[in-house]
Amino acid sequence: MLRVGLLGAGRIGQVHAVNIVRNVRSSLAAVSDIHASAAEELAAKYGCAARSSDEIINDPEIDAILIATSTDTHSDLIEAATAAGKAVLCEKPVDLSLARAKACLAASKGTSSPVMIGFNRRFDPSFAYLKEQSVNGEIGKSELLSLTSFDPAPPPVSYIKVSGGLFRDMMIHDFDMANFLMGDRPVTIRAVGTSQVDPAIGEAGDVDTAVVTMTYSDGRIAVIKNSRRAVYGYDQRIELLGSDGLLQANNILENTVTKSTTAGVVSGKPVHFFLERYMPAYAAEWEAFVEATLSGAPVPVSLEDGIAALAMAEAATLSLQSGQTVDVEY
Amino acid sequence: MLRVGLLGAGRIGQVHAVNIVRNVRSSLAAVSDIHASAAEELAAKYGCAARSSDEIINDPEIDAILIATSTDTHSDLIEAATAAGKAVLCEKPVDLSLARAKACLAASKGTSSPVMIGFNRRFDPSFAYLKEQSVNGEIGKSELLSLTSFDPAPPPVSYIKVSGGLFRDMMIHDFDMANFLMGDRPVTIRAVGTSQVDPAIGEAGDVDTAVVTMTYSDGRIAVIKNSRRAVYGYDQRIELLGSDGLLQANNILENTVTKSTTAGVVSGKPVHFFLERYMPAYAAEWEAFVEATLSGAPVPVSLEDGIAALAMAEAATLSLQSGQTVDVEY
Amino acid sequence: MLRVGLLGAGRIGQVHAVNIVRNVRSSLAAVSDIHASAAEELAAKYGCAARSSDEIINDPEIDAILIATSTDTHSDLIEAATAAGKAVLCEKPVDLSLARAKACLAASKGTSSPVMIGFNRRFDPSFAYLKEQSVNGEIGKSELLSLTSFDPAPPPVSYIKVSGGLFRDMMIHDFDMANFLMGDRPVTIRAVGTSQVDPAIGEAGDVDTAVVTMTYSDGRIAVIKNSRRAVYGYDQRIELLGSDGLLQANNILENTVTKSTTAGVVSGKPVHFFLERYMPAYAAEWEAFVEATLSGAPVPVSLEDGIAALAMAEAATLSLQSGQTVDVEY
Amino acid sequence: MLRVGLLGAGRIGQVHAVNIVRNVRSSLAAVSDIHASAAEELAAKYGCAARSSDEIINDPEIDAILIATSTDTHSDLIEAATAAGKAVLCEKPVDLSLARAKACLAASKGTSSPVMIGFNRRFDPSFAYLKEQSVNGEIGKSELLSLTSFDPAPPPVSYIKVSGGLFRDMMIHDFDMANFLMGDRPVTIRAVGTSQVDPAIGEAGDVDTAVVTMTYSDGRIAVIKNSRRAVYGYDQRIELLGSDGLLQANNILENTVTKSTTAGVVSGKPVHFFLERYMPAYAAEWEAFVEATLSGAPVPVSLEDGIAALAMAEAATLSLQSGQTVDVEY
Repeated sequence: MLRVGLLGAGRIGQVHAVNIVRNVRSSLAAVSDIHASAAEELAAKYGCAARSSDEIINDPEIDAILIATSTDTHSDLIEAATAAGKAVLCEKPVDLSLARAKACLAASKGTSSPVMIGFNRRFDPSFAYLKEQSVNGEIGKSELLSLTSFDPAPPPVSYIKVSGGLFRDMMIHDFDMANFLMGDRPVTIRAVGTSQVDPAIGEAGDVDTAVVTMTYSDGRIAVIKNSRRAVYGYDQRIELLGSDGLLQANNILENTVTKSTTAGVVSGKPVHFFLERYMPAYAAEWEAFVEATLSGAPVPVSLEDGIAALAMAEAATLSLQSGQTVDVEY
Repeated sequence: MLRVGLLGAGRIGQVHAVNIVRNVRSSLAAVSDIHASAAEELAAKYGCAARSSDEIINDPEIDAILIATSTDTHSDLIEAATAAGKAVLCEKPVDLSLARAKACLAASKGTSSPVMIGFNRRFDPSFAYLKEQSVNGEIGKSELLSLTSFDPAPPPVSYIKVSGGLFRDMMIHDFDMANFLMGDRPVTIRAVGTSQVDPAIGEAGDVDTAVVTMTYSDGRIAVIKNSRRAVYGYDQRIELLGSDGLLQANNILENTVTKSTTAGVVSGKPVHFFLERYMPAYAAEWEAFVEATLSGAPVPVSLEDGIAALAMAEAATLSLQSGQTVDVEY
Repeated sequence: MLRVGLLGAGRIGQVHAVNIVRNVRSSLAAVSDIHASAAEELAAKYGCAARSSDEIINDPEIDAILIATSTDTHSDLIEAATAAGKAVLCEKPVDLSLARAKACLAASKGTSSPVMIGFNRRFDPSFAYLKEQSVNGEIGKSELLSLTSFDPAPPPVSYIKVSGGLFRDMMIHDFDMANFLMGDRPVTIRAVGTSQVDPAIGEAGDVDTAVVTMTYSDGRIAVIKNSRRAVYGYDQRIELLGSDGLLQANNILENTVTKSTTAGVVSGKPVHFFLERYMPAYAAEWEAFVEATLSGAPVPVSLEDGIAALAMAEAATLSLQSGQTVDVEY
Repeated sequence: MLRVGLLGAGRIGQVHAVNIVRNVRSSLAAVSDIHASAAEELAAKYGCAARSSDEIINDPEIDAILIATSTDTHSDLIEAATAAGKAVLCEKPVDLSLARAKACLAASKGTSSPVMIGFNRRFDPSFAYLKEQSVNGEIGKSELLSLTSFDPAPPPVSYIKVSGGLFRDMMIHDFDMANFLMGDRPVTIRAVGTSQVDPAIGEAGDVDTAVVTMTYSDGRIAVIKNSRRAVYGYDQRIELLGSDGLLQANNILENTVTKSTTAGVVSGKPVHFFLERYMPAYAAEWEAFVEATLSGAPVPVSLEDGIAALAMAEAATLSLQSGQTVDVEY
């Protein structure tokens, strides 16, 4: 049984709390939050204690720390938790600063604590199945990967301003998914991006629509499309073309009902909310962390993976600024 | 080269004319119609002669007769054409009277002329592929067949009154399709039917919505659903459940475009018009007739097949009237 | 907060236990089972007591009884629980004997206790949405209903022998669904059925493949297809044709991945296991019971509904035996 | 009635011949080909004359010239035909040399002859419907266009060597489609491309897998994916994201049959052959040319359109060579 301290009682922290409690091999021991009332409310719901992050990290009765706080605290908390000998699952991104993230890696490397980064989409049942099919050679040698990730609506501009930009905040999921599916990291990245959804996003120095193309040392190519707005729902699709075929993972729909009238055939939209879309993925992610931690196996998404995605986001940001192709430095 | 005389220059006659002309092994020699102007117009279009049915049937330069006249003339024309030694393709149904159709069969049997009945749906590429998959054992032993045939809109009540009723006029296609797909003829039929689409249809003594269940000597079951109105288009589907799986043939859509908005995901409707839906089937049907006639092979849909479908329509009509199960007599 | 006693700790009892615990307005107070160890194991998992049915029913600290025992005990337990003033949710069917079920209704009517029957499919999100669309007039007046329910594999013949037959055991769900969707009960039923899946089922006096057609006083028609075997998964579909269109509820697939190769385009199968398929339905059913019980509103599926479905199953059984149409007596 | 001379009796010339003959407002007057026997065979089939290109172009009885010869002859033939006062429909691309194409434009501009370029895909019913939906504002303001064009199999390397490369030979269709759908021409292009399908293609100096991203003056973005090999069929899809929704045009499948077994749900593949896929498009293209020519309206795809696509192909080729972003010069 893994006794878990949860740092962060916000929206995503609440999702993790449910999975910690439901998993038969983990229990929720304590919760912290910078808003004490949020921690207390969540703790009360699950019958555990609301405490400070420091207390939780240093409690010898706690085995693992789940970091679901704001991004700027991630590196510090990973370092503290690993120094205290805890297994760590940290939400993405590791950090907005690649340098800081690398320092965090160096520090945590010196400990024996496993650190897993919360790229939940790897654990989506359909995406994981697509990966499995690819690895099994069902479409031969993979050649061209396409990722489509459209959010239903942009976040507030106030959030955009502190988000690190679309590549670090949103496309970072796709960078990691590309690494996951291609089993390799790209050597070059070129990004185009514009602000079309909301002028305020452009004024804040960010883009809301972007396409990134990436090339690999063996000639493979990947392309990622992001938009902050798809009014019809959360649009999350994958296409992988190989020498023997094509794999596609399509959206999960609100329902299975179609209505045929003179106006056309209407079917359900993609589910709208990312938590609804990826709820099974979060549960599977947590199970994977529990399994690795209890068995001593390597975690399936390492801190290095988190840093690779961050390096790719940085390269894409540079490419967007320069208008040119950028060699990624990991 | 098959020299063809076309009897009937109406809507369906015009479809056949195109296929006769396009087929590299057939040519259109003459056209007749009870409306001389219709025959002349069609003849002019394809550079052939407008003549009387009698002249066409008795012209030694003509090899084959395509009968696309009104149903009440079919039996007489089949008898005349076969007596004159012509190969015949006759539109369905053979006759509204089962007795008359059987007499026609007896008469034509005495000649050496092949007679094919125009159950065009057997030649629909998707339906034919489904049949082929079934015959190949792709779903093991077939067990339960479901046919859905909904017309976009009912015909005029004046037509309904002379049509012979829904079972002889509309479901007869499905009776033949069931025989085609099951490779056998049912032993019992029970029909339910009501008039829901248009009260005038009920007042004319017919139904516009009907379900027929049929059982086979080996325990298999088939069910046919008909409606005279599906406002979204011509709805033509097949499902065949077998011991090892399910085969389904779905509708052909107007286009392949989907539109996703806040209102839902809208895709194309089934094509609306039966001629558009079954145009490739009519061409393939004609090719099959030409091939059989020129090679001397048996025609793929015999006069006996037409009579079997008619016997089933008669049994369904009896079942509807009595409210009870009817043993089909072929 | 509804304090719940659960009778029956088998497969379906365990599903209910999860939903009782997860629902924020209900708690699991006690569990019973004829196998004491099963009750103890489930009770231990959720930190409640394992007790006898009698103790649970008569405990004044318990508000509601969930009956998930074998069918032959349902009527007795409903009577005991309602006599003790408990709200009741009882798994379907009420009883294999229509007479016994009616007596149970008479007895429970004399109490003030609500009794809900567990026709879980009414609460399936897609089926409920289809119903809502129909009630909202999205397809005009409904005319023709088709229900397809194929199980992935037949149960053991030992189960078949005590099941009451396909109509009472399996199609009863579809009878209730028809009542739910049509908002009315049929006046006539005719059934055809054969044993094609497993000869042992036929030898046990039951059928494994069946089609039932039903007519309504206003001329509407419904058809239900059942098979005990669909090797590709649990096939659960609805089609409702109306004057202004068609509503269809399709299957939930294992995943959203399609693979296109020279062999064709392969997509996910329907989920195989009914518990997986209907898990959200069971949770929504429980929430509906909790809401009705706590608010004092009528339960959404009454004991009368359960009896109506049973009467239809009885009529279908008679029709199968006689080969004729049967008027349903409720 | 438009009397047409067809230059080129190869595969694509034969497709055009059928459409010329079938169209009620055009007739096939003469055919030429560098292989005299090919011209004679085609001429015999349709009862017209086989002649030299010169004779055809200069025959006053001929109104229009359809150029379906090899690419290197296009510019010369356009100039000769327009000088002779003929309306011209010329297969794409105009020329492999942008400079030569521009000179051709200059020459033909001096005449009063309309010149249409055969970008057949604009006339595909689904693509045209998508365009119409976009123009009608069904998805608001367009923002992000994605084109997927995968051929079933690469052409022979001997063809690759004289093709002008993937961008001029294959992606040129997508460049035109982007212009058609966006209603504007991109300002920048960046291309990545590799040889993964066949090393011989790489050795010939070409790529077989490529992704091109393009930006527009108003901030919109387009991305095109090409592969020379999609073993499952001819994969031709469009996605257009707008402020109010998404339009997608999907593939046309071989048939509408799905087979569900334990191995999954298998449906038809995309049709394999481009002529089958785009046959209705070729007929509609021809009708559009006939209509414009006879009515005196502008042709729907101008020589300028052909040159724009060529300029984009040239820019993509430069970008591929330099690895950098290229401003397109039209």
